[in-house]
Amino acid sequence: MAYLNDNYLKLKAGYLFPEISRRVAAFCQANPEAALRLIRCGIGDVTEPLPPAAVAAMRRAVDEMGARETFRGYGPEQGYDWLRATVASNDFRGRGCDVADDEIFVSDGSKCDTGNILDILGHKNKIAISDPVYPVYVDTNVMAGHTGGANEAGAYSKLVYLPCRPGNGFIPEPPKRHVDLIYLCSPNNPTGAAASRVQLEAWVRYSLEHKALILFDAAYEAYITDPSLPHSIFEIPGARECAIEFRSCSKNGGFTGVRCAFTVVPKSLRAAAGTGEWQPLHPLWLRRMTTKFNGVSYIVQRGAEALYSAEGKEEVCGLIGHYLGNAAVLRQGAKAAGLKVFGGINAPYIWVKAPKGMTSWQAFDKILNEANVVITPGSGFGSKGEGYFRVSAFNSRPNAEEAARRLQRLAW
Amino acid sequence: MAYLNDNYLKLKAGYLFPEISRRVAAFCQANPEAALRLIRCGIGDVTEPLPPAAVAAMRRAVDEMGARETFRGYGPEQGYDWLRATVASNDFRGRGCDVADDEIFVSDGSKCDTGNILDILGHKNKIAISDPVYPVYVDTNVMAGHTGGANEAGAYSKLVYLPCRPGNGFIPEPPKRHVDLIYLCSPNNPTGAAASRVQLEAWVRYSLEHKALILFDAAYEAYITDPSLPHSIFEIPGARECAIEFRSCSKNGGFTGVRCAFTVVPKSLRAAAGTGEWQPLHPLWLRRMTTKFNGVSYIVQRGAEALYSAEGKEEVCGLIGHYLGNAAVLRQGAKAAGLKVFGGINAPYIWVKAPKGMTSWQAFDKILNEANVVITPGSGFGSKGEGYFRVSAFNSRPNAEEAARRLQRLAW
Repeated sequence: MAYLNDNYLKLKAGYLFPEISRRVAAFCQANPEAALRLIRCGIGDVTEPLPPAAVAAMRRAVDEMGARETFRGYGPEQGYDWLRATVASNDFRGRGCDVADDEIFVSDGSKCDTGNILDILGHKNKIAISDPVYPVYVDTNVMAGHTGGANEAGAYSKLVYLPCRPGNGFIPEPPKRHVDLIYLCSPNNPTGAAASRVQLEAWVRYSLEHKALILFDAAYEAYITDPSLPHSIFEIPGARECAIEFRSCSKNGGFTGVRCAFTVVPKSLRAAAGTGEWQPLHPLWLRRMTTKFNGVSYIVQRGAEALYSAEGKEEVCGLIGHYLGNAAVLRQGAKAAGLKVFGGINAPYIWVKAPKGMTSWQAFDKILNEANVVITPGSGFGSKGEGYFRVSAFNSRPNAEEAARRLQRLAW
Repeated sequence: MAYLNDNYLKLKAGYLFPEISRRVAAFCQANPEAALRLIRCGIGDVTEPLPPAAVAAMRRAVDEMGARETFRGYGPEQGYDWLRATVASNDFRGRGCDVADDEIFVSDGSKCDTGNILDILGHKNKIAISDPVYPVYVDTNVMAGHTGGANEAGAYSKLVYLPCRPGNGFIPEPPKRHVDLIYLCSPNNPTGAAASRVQLEAWVRYSLEHKALILFDAAYEAYITDPSLPHSIFEIPGARECAIEFRSCSKNGGFTGVRCAFTVVPKSLRAAAGTGEWQPLHPLWLRRMTTKFNGVSYIVQRGAEALYSAEGKEEVCGLIGHYLGNAAVLRQGAKAAGLKVFGGINAPYIWVKAPKGMTSWQAFDKILNEANVVITPGSGFGSKGEGYFRVSAFNSRPNAEEAARRLQRLAW
């Protein structure tokens, strides 16, 4: 009798985005005219076309694949050397981080990697996550059997939830208790907060003391505008002994539909075997990738490489500037309505407090019905997200401006 | 203290292909002139350019991504509807198999999927694999903790090895004992054998009786030339209740460097929860893919779709004909040398018995040194592969012809 993985049965059925879709669809059906004015500031998906440098590079790569002399079959599972070298030198060594080319693993998404990384980790780890949090960190741990069941608020037993509130700038402090594995996301999805050097130093210090491992999701690092903020955990001394970093081309190069990301696993990073022996994780991740992955499309890798050319960098800057411009407009609109607004300065997300004790879903319904704007209820990201909502800046400028005007006009 | 996954430490260090690379590199360094004549019939990677239909479709898709009106961000994680419908109707319903569009899950590789499928299965399954076997089936089970350690011959305890020998046409019979999970690959890598309808019927009967699950890898189905052979496990009545099938664009459309594959999970397929309750697997795989995957590149999905256009089908036929032509030439060469030859008729692999009791590696060294041809030692695929070697037909015609001539001239 074939057995299924029972841990999947612990997952809560109603995921955030399907419920949003359901409510939006019901609204549109009931209000066909308002449906035409709908502006979506919900899901964090880019809207602007790919940088021309990436388009040109992928066109060339497609043509290469059509000619015998330049055709490429299987590439290295961990990515082509030229891309790994480009990433390591531009994103890391260029910023003073000691990261070698072969510590870069090219993949098809940082969502995939933040889930897959659990493959190489044991089942005994005590795991800490922020609250609110990107749901993938939680769900992949549920699937792997690292949690018990969920309570009414959706919190799973065995996980350590680290509250993010205005008081800590939505960046959690290291806990008093011991944990083995910590997920950190900065700039943060959903709160738009970005960790300072001092905050990351505290986490590295904690992790070295506790021999813990930080899983650092930096998918939004390109949105950092404050020059004092670290772009990589590897800007912090000691991080090479306690951290893995996830990077993505999705939100800088607009690759959400193209699919390319990177994970940095330092060769100096170690974890404990069951015997207590301290062993390097780099060979395990290499083995995982060569056994369970076949590399990113050659065409896509050429597109990713082009993001680092002089033209590519300029075009990426233009995209980031566009979305951050939207964020400024949306911040302004929400503030003018008297709302308390966070984020949106070093991140493409604005995190807004619903006024007068409204719940996230109450705010969602009000904004949908009265402003015909779709946002994301903060409670979907964890119990400490209750009472907040996320506004995504991924949009056209006219849409962002119109959404801001409507938010501003809302009477709360 | 962060813990690693101890199961990785059970994996044998020396994987087959790195050892081949090492011996080839040593040979080339010692024999620089012979190195220039080297012909590689080792790794199963395609050599011919992509079908022009796929190239044209991907060029269009790249251009779409460069314009705001046609740009696409995140697609559905399980693949675009148009591709799922195209696959389901062409590969399945067109051959009389009852497979719905939403039972097709598009992924970036069948190697990935044959590994990832273990995510949704429990740890109590008794697992059967063929011997010889594609190593990924074994290694991913080792990593997931489903085996004990390996013995000297490289066989892991707790797995049930099903011997493939000339006597059973290299297709294993269902065992006398009970197993829960069975990996079948037809046409087979490495032996080139293809299962008959009667053989697959026996497996489906066994699986229904034992409530077992068949993981059917059909990555090479396009190479089937014998019209009596099934292309899909779903041609066998009852398979919808006991099988998952893996398909790939790698070996038909030459997509090894482009990356696209499909997995078919019937909605009628069920497995047991820990409580003994029998539950459908389709929602679990959907949840796995939406949580741990972000979909295949839009550009690649358009390329895959084009393989099913009228031009695309004709071009794929041409590619398959080319590689099967190579296989015929290589079969002929090996036979003319007096060797016992299997496969190569419904598959791009030829499986050859090394004469006079030679081991696989002895044959490898002899062929490398005397014919300057690289083959794959059969023992690398399992203990029952000892004494055999695999010759890959993925090559140019001149290379295949020259390799055949050299094999023919070898004195054994």
